[in-house]
Amino acid sequence: MSKLYIGVDLGGTNIRAGIVNEEGTILCKKSIKTNLPKPEAVLEKDIFELCDSLCFENGYDLHSDIEAVGIGTPGSVDGIRGIVWSNVNFGYKNWKIVENLKGLFGDDIKLYVENDANAAVIAEVAAGSAKGCNDALMITLGTGVGGGAYLGGKIYAGYNYAGLEVGHMVIRVNGKPCNCGRKGCFERYAAATALIELTKEAMENNPDSALWKICPDISRVNAKTAFDGWRESDPVATEVVNTYIKDLARGIINLVNIFQPEILTIGGGVSNEKDTLIALLKPYIDEEDYARNARERTKIVIAKFRNDAGIIGAAMLGVNNA
Amino acid sequence: MSKLYIGVDLGGTNIRAGIVNEEGTILCKKSIKTNLPKPEAVLEKDIFELCDSLCFENGYDLHSDIEAVGIGTPGSVDGIRGIVWSNVNFGYKNWKIVENLKGLFGDDIKLYVENDANAAVIAEVAAGSAKGCNDALMITLGTGVGGGAYLGGKIYAGYNYAGLEVGHMVIRVNGKPCNCGRKGCFERYAAATALIELTKEAMENNPDSALWKICPDISRVNAKTAFDGWRESDPVATEVVNTYIKDLARGIINLVNIFQPEILTIGGGVSNEKDTLIALLKPYIDEEDYARNARERTKIVIAKFRNDAGIIGAAMLGVNNA
Repeated sequence: MSKLYIGVDLGGTNIRAGIVNEEGTILCKKSIKTNLPKPEAVLEKDIFELCDSLCFENGYDLHSDIEAVGIGTPGSVDGIRGIVWSNVNFGYKNWKIVENLKGLFGDDIKLYVENDANAAVIAEVAAGSAKGCNDALMITLGTGVGGGAYLGGKIYAGYNYAGLEVGHMVIRVNGKPCNCGRKGCFERYAAATALIELTKEAMENNPDSALWKICPDISRVNAKTAFDGWRESDPVATEVVNTYIKDLARGIINLVNIFQPEILTIGGGVSNEKDTLIALLKPYIDEEDYARNARERTKIVIAKFRNDAGIIGAAMLGVNNA
Repeated sequence: MSKLYIGVDLGGTNIRAGIVNEEGTILCKKSIKTNLPKPEAVLEKDIFELCDSLCFENGYDLHSDIEAVGIGTPGSVDGIRGIVWSNVNFGYKNWKIVENLKGLFGDDIKLYVENDANAAVIAEVAAGSAKGCNDALMITLGTGVGGGAYLGGKIYAGYNYAGLEVGHMVIRVNGKPCNCGRKGCFERYAAATALIELTKEAMENNPDSALWKICPDISRVNAKTAFDGWRESDPVATEVVNTYIKDLARGIINLVNIFQPEILTIGGGVSNEKDTLIALLKPYIDEEDYARNARERTKIVIAKFRNDAGIIGAAMLGVNNA
């Protein structure tokens, strides 16, 4: 029988856990509210009880059926030592999560922890869009632009686990101001937020655009709105999409030239456009990738896992370390 | 007694070899002309004879004194398999250099090959500015802007060994056209060539600048000229240096945010400015590094080795693999 693992996705709103097999398939899952703020010890007990009840309710025994439990959490995480150095959202510092959870889970279950963005990369490499890759880069187009790197067969996080801030790469010197203090960061042009901003501006400047039919309430514009207008051949929406895609492509090509990964996988809200997104990006990448004449080039793909990436990636920490 | 290694720096003009100890100190060296074009087999024989005579002339015996010979060469190099996939300057493809040299050196001497830029990074990590680092990034400011990465304790070269083209990261969308086909590449603003271009333009526009005293023949402007003018407080030179430094800083901060290496080391012609260069860059980096408030940050330093980086790095291939 395939070995079983639990992956825990520790979010600011919910704690989600799932029992996952070696192939990365979720067999069952359960979630509870995080209810912050709360002391570390209380949260640790919540995690343990969530895992315990997840097993019980689905006919598994935590101690005899589960090989390992992996936790994906925001913050700077030292996976080797099992310590969360800093989790700003939770207000924790120097959180010895693995050592503390060992006291609850016992010594027979292996415990691992990793940053949640890195867990998503691990999920894609283990069972998703970058399956079997040795060098994979992931970018997420959401509120900001996040990054994760799996290089030479393991997560690369940088000094102090502070690397892969690919969103804070300036692509337009003296461009739009960014929260980070720089001007013209990739994130200001490529995040879902940036696309929404572009869409709203275009709507305000073009009261006749079909975008108003697609989304009569401008406050409800989302990352899909402009693409919907583009699908209806609305010229205003088409310009928004073209502007967005060009800058997204520029940043992606930068990352391809820098890392030349085997696969660059795109996640986050905007990646819901899937094949459309890839089809729009491809001509730019084919034209500008420095290694465009190489025998084999970086493949640009869409991440496979959506909300379950955290659970699967966290569970895979156990599989990878088995 | 310390073990001895030979490092060979295979250039288009010269082949340079040195006997190097475990600490990365060159004990003696010798060079011959490369005299391209020539068939692979002839070049291999040249390399062997250079190493053999280097030993003989300095009182060493190739077979009893030398542990390993490492070769640093331009091109895309698979160090694991010992193959140079492509060396455009030499006109070689799929060059099985390690296997072929084994036939000349015999089985008792270990042989290694690596890309020459990567060899320079290895030299800095083994015995130079990034000594003992686990994650180091190197950029070279020369004709172009090159990059090398030592991540997680080994060279990261990317898929097809085509990564680390950090010079071809766009920092100014629709900026100066680059040979690579993109516009606004970092290299167009940060290479020594770019600094020379800026200096010449400023001289042409300012016939009264002190730069003309420093370099009366404009065709002889080099990467030092503008810095010399800056040292004399010439306002034109100062503006050139400020413009150059700002864009150089922007690209460096991009790379710091992306890799967050322990050390980012700067080599190439412009790095001859040493402490001056670091002092000018530092205020920008302190202001914009995404991890500027972290406990410890990426250190920005000047590469230690100049023309000998290739020999030392190639020799260190043997030390690292010992």
